[in-house]
Parts: sequence; structure tokens; C-alpha cells
Amino acid sequence: MRSSVPKVLQPICGRAMVGLVADALRGAGLDDLVAVVAPGARGVGEAIGGCVSPVEQAEQLGTGHALAQAGALLAEHRGHVLAINGDVPLVTPATISALVNRHESTGACLTILTCDGPPSHGMGRVVRDDNGAVAAIVEEADLDARSACSAEANAGVYCVQSPWVWSALSGLPTAPNGEVYLTSLVAEAVRQGHAVESLCVSDASEALGVNDGVQLDRAREAMRRRINDGWRLRGVSVMEPAYIDVAVEIGEDSVLYPNSFLQGRTSVGKGCAIGPGSMVTDSSIADGCRILNSVVEGAVLEEGVDVGPFSHVRPDSHVETGVHVGNFAEIKNSRLGRGTKMGHFSYVGDSWVGAGVNIGAGAVTCNFDGVDKHRTIVEDGAFIGSDSMLIAPVRIGAGASTGAGSVVTKDVPPGARVAGAPARIIGRGSPSELREA
Amino acid sequence: MRSSVPKVLQPICGRAMVGLVADALRGAGLDDLVAVVAPGARGVGEAIGGCVSPVEQAEQLGTGHALAQAGALLAEHRGHVLAINGDVPLVTPATISALVNRHESTGACLTILTCDGPPSHGMGRVVRDDNGAVAAIVEEADLDARSACSAEANAGVYCVQSPWVWSALSGLPTAPNGEVYLTSLVAEAVRQGHAVESLCVSDASEALGVNDGVQLDRAREAMRRRINDGWRLRGVSVMEPAYIDVAVEIGEDSVLYPNSFLQGRTSVGKGCAIGPGSMVTDSSIADGCRILNSVVEGAVLEEGVDVGPFSHVRPDSHVETGVHVGNFAEIKNSRLGRGTKMGHFSYVGDSWVGAGVNIGAGAVTCNFDGVDKHRTIVEDGAFIGSDSMLIAPVRIGAGASTGAGSVVTKDVPPGARVAGAPARIIGRGSPSELREA
Amino acid sequence: MRSSVPKVLQPICGRAMVGLVADALRGAGLDDLVAVVAPGARGVGEAIGGCVSPVEQAEQLGTGHALAQAGALLAEHRGHVLAINGDVPLVTPATISALVNRHESTGACLTILTCDGPPSHGMGRVVRDDNGAVAAIVEEADLDARSACSAEANAGVYCVQSPWVWSALSGLPTAPNGEVYLTSLVAEAVRQGHAVESLCVSDASEALGVNDGVQLDRAREAMRRRINDGWRLRGVSVMEPAYIDVAVEIGEDSVLYPNSFLQGRTSVGKGCAIGPGSMVTDSSIADGCRILNSVVEGAVLEEGVDVGPFSHVRPDSHVETGVHVGNFAEIKNSRLGRGTKMGHFSYVGDSWVGAGVNIGAGAVTCNFDGVDKHRTIVEDGAFIGSDSMLIAPVRIGAGASTGAGSVVTKDVPPGARVAGAPARIIGRGSPSELREA
Repeated sequence: MRSSVPKVLQPICGRAMVGLVADALRGAGLDDLVAVVAPGARGVGEAIGGCVSPVEQAEQLGTGHALAQAGALLAEHRGHVLAINGDVPLVTPATISALVNRHESTGACLTILTCDGPPSHGMGRVVRDDNGAVAAIVEEADLDARSACSAEANAGVYCVQSPWVWSALSGLPTAPNGEVYLTSLVAEAVRQGHAVESLCVSDASEALGVNDGVQLDRAREAMRRRINDGWRLRGVSVMEPAYIDVAVEIGEDSVLYPNSFLQGRTSVGKGCAIGPGSMVTDSSIADGCRILNSVVEGAVLEEGVDVGPFSHVRPDSHVETGVHVGNFAEIKNSRLGRGTKMGHFSYVGDSWVGAGVNIGAGAVTCNFDGVDKHRTIVEDGAFIGSDSMLIAPVRIGAGASTGAGSVVTKDVPPGARVAGAPARIIGRGSPSELREA
Repeated sequence: MRSSVPKVLQPICGRAMVGLVADALRGAGLDDLVAVVAPGARGVGEAIGGCVSPVEQAEQLGTGHALAQAGALLAEHRGHVLAINGDVPLVTPATISALVNRHESTGACLTILTCDGPPSHGMGRVVRDDNGAVAAIVEEADLDARSACSAEANAGVYCVQSPWVWSALSGLPTAPNGEVYLTSLVAEAVRQGHAVESLCVSDASEALGVNDGVQLDRAREAMRRRINDGWRLRGVSVMEPAYIDVAVEIGEDSVLYPNSFLQGRTSVGKGCAIGPGSMVTDSSIADGCRILNSVVEGAVLEEGVDVGPFSHVRPDSHVETGVHVGNFAEIKNSRLGRGTKMGHFSYVGDSWVGAGVNIGAGAVTCNFDGVDKHRTIVEDGAFIGSDSMLIAPVRIGAGASTGAGSVVTKDVPPGARVAGAPARIIGRGSPSELREA
Repeated sequence: MRSSVPKVLQPICGRAMVGLVADALRGAGLDDLVAVVAPGARGVGEAIGGCVSPVEQAEQLGTGHALAQAGALLAEHRGHVLAINGDVPLVTPATISALVNRHESTGACLTILTCDGPPSHGMGRVVRDDNGAVAAIVEEADLDARSACSAEANAGVYCVQSPWVWSALSGLPTAPNGEVYLTSLVAEAVRQGHAVESLCVSDASEALGVNDGVQLDRAREAMRRRINDGWRLRGVSVMEPAYIDVAVEIGEDSVLYPNSFLQGRTSVGKGCAIGPGSMVTDSSIADGCRILNSVVEGAVLEEGVDVGPFSHVRPDSHVETGVHVGNFAEIKNSRLGRGTKMGHFSYVGDSWVGAGVNIGAGAVTCNFDGVDKHRTIVEDGAFIGSDSMLIAPVRIGAGASTGAGSVVTKDVPPGARVAGAPARIIGRGSPSELREA
């Protein structure tokens, strides 16, 4: 892959490739996973998640050698083993289940998954005998004219009897490059007179193997399409292109306009409008929210919040019902109370803001003094005038108001009006009177 | 559709699906429209627009039953009736005309529109007799092996003799689910010995029926492609993806960079550059404008205006020739005069700004006092210093200037220089002298 | 094309169409270029670049007439001439080389490039005799039923013997519209008993001719796909859609998220993350940079700079290692020193900013006095408080700090603390003490 990230850890729709493979296995009820990994391939276990037994393949001597490494762990296992490459991210639980069913119902020694149609680069081809029975798999590099014509390719998923497989693996031939291929198991089974069955997957994209960056792109596009169509059938209006991670949840009647990114552990409620051009990551968005051309990360938005265009809600922000966040607004590690309005360019950081507050254009919570970050508290119904600088730590009392351009260095009592730099109390009452100052 | 929006009202390129169907009929000269709608399906008449007679189908008893509801209205009609489903949004006027021509020139009792190629989910199939004549339409649910093989599908558009059709409808069979299908009309005509003709549409996408969210997406993509290619042939450079509503007009030599959205009743002049990442809605953009990565809604931009990146022109704004709106600028319900510059983050709302004005970074028209919105007037040639707060209602006279950080609470006479918070007159002359204050 | 831009100058991935053709020729070792251009077609020579001899075709009398205009220049040339239309932008050096090789190895008089598959609009078709030898090319407008069936189209690339070609051109027939077609050269060679060979290009998109806006779009998409796949195979993770100009360089392990635009002479280092929604033009981006949803033009970013979302780095900016540019920040014609932070909405223009500086939210370098632009200097370790207005020309000394909302009209000595409007020195020490002012 010419990348410092191992192939099976390359992300596809927010999940490492090998994690998608593991998800498909678990979805088919196969929970007893063994991962054969190269030494130092950190992160594979974490990517798979849950219960998985790691086995190290000290030398990279091919797929057959890799499976053999699991032998010590599984030698006593009586039944079947499903071996799958970590680079077939699009295989589905339904296909895995169908393969296992075929294997069990036929009583075969070995059952392989195949696919029709133009094989992608790197896939071995299935060779059948005159009766149509599987005879062997030929690696792409070894294709002769006849097998090259075969459009039936090996998808890299094998269901095989245990413990037979462990002895068979030790008898596989070694290729000139020193590797032992798992694909040779087919010919070995045939040689021993065992039955080899196959299942041809109906959607060839499930068998897409990822061996280079172009195939990774195609796998991403196919997975993206599958996820998007899935949401479309569940009442979400998804306009292309949309980028929805596998772990995301979306409610009915929500609309994703083009270039919406829903990433990580994000949930979106019903009747929301996201995008165009919005990126929502690890956030919880309640019903009826509108997020236009904005970035929301690690935040909670309650019902009916509207954001954007061009705003940025940063981690640890909690925005209550009906808050209006307009354009060029930045919120970080803060809570905004019900119905508060923050319509224009301004910055609220490390703050607790009550309900019904108005935050004027250009207002800033000056949370950083060059050394430490401090908190700002704005109580219910306060009116923060345009360009007000709130020098934290500071508290603006309920119903208080600050004049445009004021620099607030001290707490403001409830109901007071302040103005100036530094701000001083100039009275009480509605902010419309501030102009008299 | 698993949506609270009725299927035929789902939007495609800015127009409800059923409105696109009606547009195609009108484009073919069929102006006498009757819409059969379910009770409570508000909005269908409005979506169709113009003259349309609504007829209510009290119970949802199938397409044949639906057409029969129009019988009372059309029983006296001698000639032909064209019946079309509301969910075939891609059919063109040319195809409708061709179908009518085929029907009239052959003198058939019934002429149906069909399409070749892999039928999409939900389409009935055409069954022909040994002579190739249309014999029946089989619903997808009732397909047997033989008719399933037929790649010729029913597009859901019928041209039929009136008043024959009204009596024939009453004789159609009722399906086990209690519905009467319009497709049964074909077999009924054949049974009565009448001629049934067909026209096969050359572009299968025209026959795309929308029965679920995935098909809705495909219809959107097909319509989008059709609109974009249409503009490409008229001298507009449209880069994918672009989202152009059906009602939009664009002049020659304009370039739409990727992710341009032209929505609603928007017109764009010649030689404009829109995008990437710009959303223009219900706006009039004159020749030679440049809108980069910005949102423009309900606004008028005169010639040669440039906006962006990351600016927001809100409704009821009128921006005169040669105005420069830079980054992070917000304009709402305001007029900006010829050649005015607003280059940086700032907010102009509820304002009248003259020609040749310079609006500095961070300047704000403080239009809201917590209770009401007020207007700001800035006369020609004024210089609004950075971070000036203009507390509305307020007027800045022609050629006047405000110092950086000033808070202007009273009108400023023409030519005066003001500074401070609250701002006081400190002299006359060029703003470069403000630094002496 | 219905455009004021000549067809061959229409841009494709940042390069004029004819420039791409010239690049393919040079890539195949053909450096001796002659361009036949219409009078007044400015820019073709510049688009081709390097050494090229321009020849004017005074009247637009067809492709055969065009080539004949080069006759005076090449009449003495003994060997071969490769004639190519300027509107086949996707042809590759490998194909040009293969065509020349076929021509030279067969000793043919004329060798043409052809392509299989459904020909695009405007392509002539190849007619072969009963032995399979090329007999003629028929223009699309003159296709009869038989040649219309031919799926082998003329790609518009000819390798031909010189000086034979010059006399042959003079003998070509004139079409009813007064034009002489280069395609007639095939029949002429056959008529004279000379051998005509052909090479069929394996990737039909290479032969895509551009005759209208729709084909221009298809050419852009094909080139974009080719460029993106090329980077994918070189270790760059390119997510669709990405828009990478032909002259761009990108290092391994960089990730381009969707809607990344890398334009003009831009280089991106290793391990960068660009996008989604970022536009980088004519800029140099070092290793490990992160640019999210931002616009960078004509700038240099050193290692590990992070920008965005929603920021704008304008021309002649140089941002040193480890600088943090947050949201809504604008930098123009300025240098920012190592590790400086500019996290929020603010504007730095015409400035030199040292290392370790903190620039607060809403801070502005007031560089324009209504007449001239002036420079701001901020020395190492200074702390620019939120909403500070720095009235240029002005210098903030090393380690100095400005209070929130201060208007700095005079130079600030190193280590001093200033506040107020206009700002006055209020002490020394850490900015946290500014709140006491």
C-alpha cells in the first residue's frame, strides 16, 4: 500500500478494514475469533475489538503458513474453521452464513467462496474439472491462458474441517518465493479425495480484495454506497455524496444534503437537516436540528438547534433546545441554555451560558490569560452586547447587560447594566438604554 | 418511502416529483390536467401549479380505481386521455408527444409506454403474443418465470380512448388485496378485441419509477445529470458535482466549480465564477460575479461583485456593482453601494450603506437592542474603522470616519472623524490621522 | 463550445487542453512541435509552453488545410510527422510512442490511431477492406448505414511520412462546405497504393475528443480519475471527489479527504491531512500539516501547521513550523513565527509575527488607513489580547502584552503591558494581571 498504516488497518467508513471483516463474522454468529498477525502489527486486536485471540506469524511466509500458526490454538477443535483474509472488507454476514450452511449441508471437507464477473487485480481463479467440481485455485501470477479465461475468482474465504485442516496445511507445497499459499488447500483436498464445495456470491463487490490504493478507494465507494442506500430504505433522504460511518444512527425524515460527513459515534434524530458541507463527529444531534456548512465535534445538540453556515461547535459542548447558532460562531467546552442566541461571529469557550441569553456579534469569552484557561458564567436572560470582552473568570448575572465594546473584568450583578473598558455599572434596565451611556 | 412527505411531493432538483410530471405534460401541450389524490394529500395541487382539477380518491384501491375517480369529470370527453403515474419524474415532453402521436396515428384504443433494459424494482412487465402484439401487463409481484424474463417493462404512461376507458375501468378485475390495477386495462382491451399499441422509450431512465428512497436517489442523480449536461451544451462550464434546480437560469461563459448549489428561483449572469462550495438560493446574480465558498440567499448582486470565501449574504440584501465582500462577512437586509469594500469578518444588518465605503475588520452594525431591530445608514465614502460598533439607529455622514474600536452611539456629521467609546468628534480629514487620537 | 475561451484552451485539471496534448508528445520524446492556430488565438503558444513553432491558419478550412499550413516549415523534413488534433487531451505518451513504433516498424506511409467501443459524438469511423486493411475514414456526418456500424473510430492522431504528406495534402478533395479533411489522407494513401497501418488504443478514453461542453466534462472526469488513481498507487489516500491539478506533488501517507482541491503549482509533504473542503492553490505545504475546510493561496506552510476549519491564508504568507491557525482566521502577506497561535476569528495582514505569539480572538492588524497599507510587527512571545486593534505601522515588543479591547496606536516596548483605547502602558508581567486594570 506504500503507507505506514498496515493494510488491514486502513479505514473504510470509519472502521478499520479488518474490523469490518470481524463484524461480518460476528454478524453471522461466529464469535470465536483468532487473528493471525505480523509481529509489531499494533492495533489489529483493537480494531477487531471484543474477544479475539491473537496469534503471531513471526515470518511472512504466505497465507497457508499464516493459518497454520493458529493450529496450536485450534488443534483440538472438532468441527469447522472459517478462514478469511483481512482484506475483504465488503463481505456480509448473510454471505458468511450462506457459506457455512453450504459447507455443513453438503458435508464437504472444504467449501470456498467464489465470485463471478471480471475479477479484480490480485484474485486467484477457480479451476474446475470436467464435471464442474472445484479442482484447484490458481494464483493470478501463475495463470495460464486457460485459467485466465475463467471469470470465477477466489474470494479468499474458506470453510474447512478441523482438525483435518491442520495436518493438510503441513503438506502444502512451498512456492519458489518461499511462501505457502492457503489456496493450495483446494488441490490438496482434491488430491486426498475429499469433497470441495463452493458458493458463488451474488454481489461481486462483496469479494473485492484490497491490494493497493486504487482497490481501497473502490472498496470505500462500494461501502459508502451500501451504507447510504441502507439509510435511504429506512426513510432518510441521503443526497450524494454523503459520508456516513458504519456506527452512525439516523432518524426518519432526516435529510442529508450533499457533502455531509457523519463520523464516529454520531447519532442524528428525526427530521434533521444536515449539510450541505457539514461535518459531524462523535456527536449526539436530537430531533429537528439544522446544521448547515458547519463542523460539530464531540458535542450534544438538543432538539431544534440550528447551526451555521460556517460555525464550529467543538468538543464538550452541550447546546440546549432551540438554541440558534448563526454564522462564524465558535463554541468550545461550554453549555448554552435553552433558546439562547449566538447569531454572528463570536467565541464562547469554557463557559456556562444560561437560557434566553443573547450573545452579540464579536463577543468573546477571554478564557486564556497566557497561562491558564478560566471559566465564564452568563446567567439566564443576560444580554451580551456586540464586541463585549468577558475576561474570565467572570460571572454575568441574570438579566444583566453589557454595552457594545465593553471589557468586563469583574462580575456583573443580576439586572445591572455595564459599559466601558473596563466596564462599570451604568444602571439597570433594558439594553436599549445603553446607547445613552 | 418511510417519510412524512408524500412520495410524489419529494423534491428532485428543487421541484416536487409530481410537478416534474406535470411540467412534462404541459411541455407536450397537454394543459388540461386532472390530479387524482388521496384525501389529505395537501400540497399536490400547489406542486402541480397552474390549472389543475383535483379529484379525491377516498380509498386507496389501486391505480385503476384512481383513474376511475376522474370518470365523473371526463365522462363526456370524446377523444383521448393520457394517464400517468405521479412517480415517473424523468419522462420528457418529447416522449409524451411521441406517445400521443403513436396513439393517434395508429388509431389504437390504448397505447402504452414501455422501456427496455433491466427494469427497476416495482415495474410491471409487458407480455406480448406470438405476433409481437401487446397482450397484457403483469405486475412484478405476479411474475412467473416466463414474464420475468421479459426485459420490456411498463413505464406507467397510458394513452387511451375516451369514453371507452371509463366503461372498461369498471370491468377490471379486483386483485386479492382489493385493488384494481390500471395495468389490467391492457388485457381488457385485448379481450374486447381492441388494438393496443406501444412506444418504447429510447432512454430507459425516463421510465424510472420511484418506489423507495434508493430509486428516489437514482432519479435525482439522473435529473441532475440531465440538467448539468443541458447547461454544458449552452456554454456553461459545469464541474461535477453541481446541484442546479430546474428553475435556474445561467449565462454563457459562467463557470460552476464543484459543489455549487443554485437553488430555487436563481439567475446567474454571464462570465460568473460560482464555487467551489457555494450555495446560492432565490437570488439574482449579475454578470461577472465571483462567489467562492459562500452562502447567498434571497439577495441581488449587481455586476462584478466578488464574495468569499466563507461569507454569508442573507435575504433582502442588495449589493451594487463592484462591491468586494471578503471572508467571514455577513450581510442581512441591507444595501451596499457601488464599490464598497467589506473585506473581513464583520456584520452589516438592517443597513443602507452608500458607495465607496470601507468597512473595517470586526465592524458591527449593532441592530438589536434586546427588544427591537434598528437601522444603520452609512453615507458615501465613509470609512468605518476596524472593530467599530455602530449602535443603531445611527447615521454616519458622507466621508466621515470612525476610529478603530470606537462605539458610535450618535449620528456622525459628514466629514467628521470620531473615536472612542462612546465615540466623540476628534476632527476632520483622512482616517490616517486617527492614529494621533 | 459556446464559450469565449477557445476550445483547446479550456482547462482540464489545471492545464489547457492543448497543453496536455503537448505534454503527451514531449513525454514520448517528440520535442519539435509546430502548432497550427487560428489568427488571434492568443494563448495557445503559452499553453503549449517551451519550444514550439507557431503557424497561422488564416482561414478555417479544415484539418487537412491546417496541416498543410505547416508545410512551408517542414517541406525539407525527411522522416515522419505526427499530426494530432488539439482536442484529444487524454492521449498518453505511451500511446504516442506505440503509434510511432508501429509506424516505423511497419514502414507504413501512414499510421493512424483508432479506438474500439462506442465512439463519442463527432468521431469519424474507420472503414476497412475485405482483408482488414484500413481503406478510409468516414466523417461522422457522412456515415452510411454500413460504416455507422463500425465501432472502430478515428482518434485523430496520424503518423505520416514526410515529405510525402505535403504533396498528398494538396491533392485532397474539398468537401461541399469548403473544408479539406485530414481524414481524407487515408483514402489518398490507399489510392496511391501506399500502406496504411493502424494502432488501436487499449483504453478508449485516451481517444476522447472534445467537441462540446458535455465531452469536456467527461474528459475532465477521466483525467481526474487518472490523476487520483495515480496518487493512490503512490501511497496517497485520495478520497472522492478530489481535484488535483497535473502539476501538483504529494508525499506518501498524506490523506486527501473529499472535496480537496490542490491547484496550480502546489506541493504537499508527507503525512498531511487535507480537507474535507480545502482548497490549496500555488502553495507549498510541508510534512504533517492539517488543513480542514480552509482556503490557502500562494502561501508557504512549514511542518506541522494546522489550519481550520474555515480559515483563509492569502498570498505571500509564510507560516512557520507548528503554528496553529484555528477557525475564521485570515492571514495575508504576513509571516507567522514558529509555534504561534491564532486560534479564532482575527485578521493578520502585512505583518511580521514572531515565534510563540498568542493572537486573541477578534484581534486585527489595522493595516489600511483609507489611503495606504502599513506593516505590523509583533515580536517573539508577545500576547495580543482578544479584540486588540493594532494600528499599523506599529511594533509590539518581545514578551509584551495588550489588553482585551485595547487600541494600540504606538509602539509597545518589550515586556510592557498596555491596555485601553488608545492603549497606555499599565505595567509589566503576565497578561493574567491585565484584569486588574
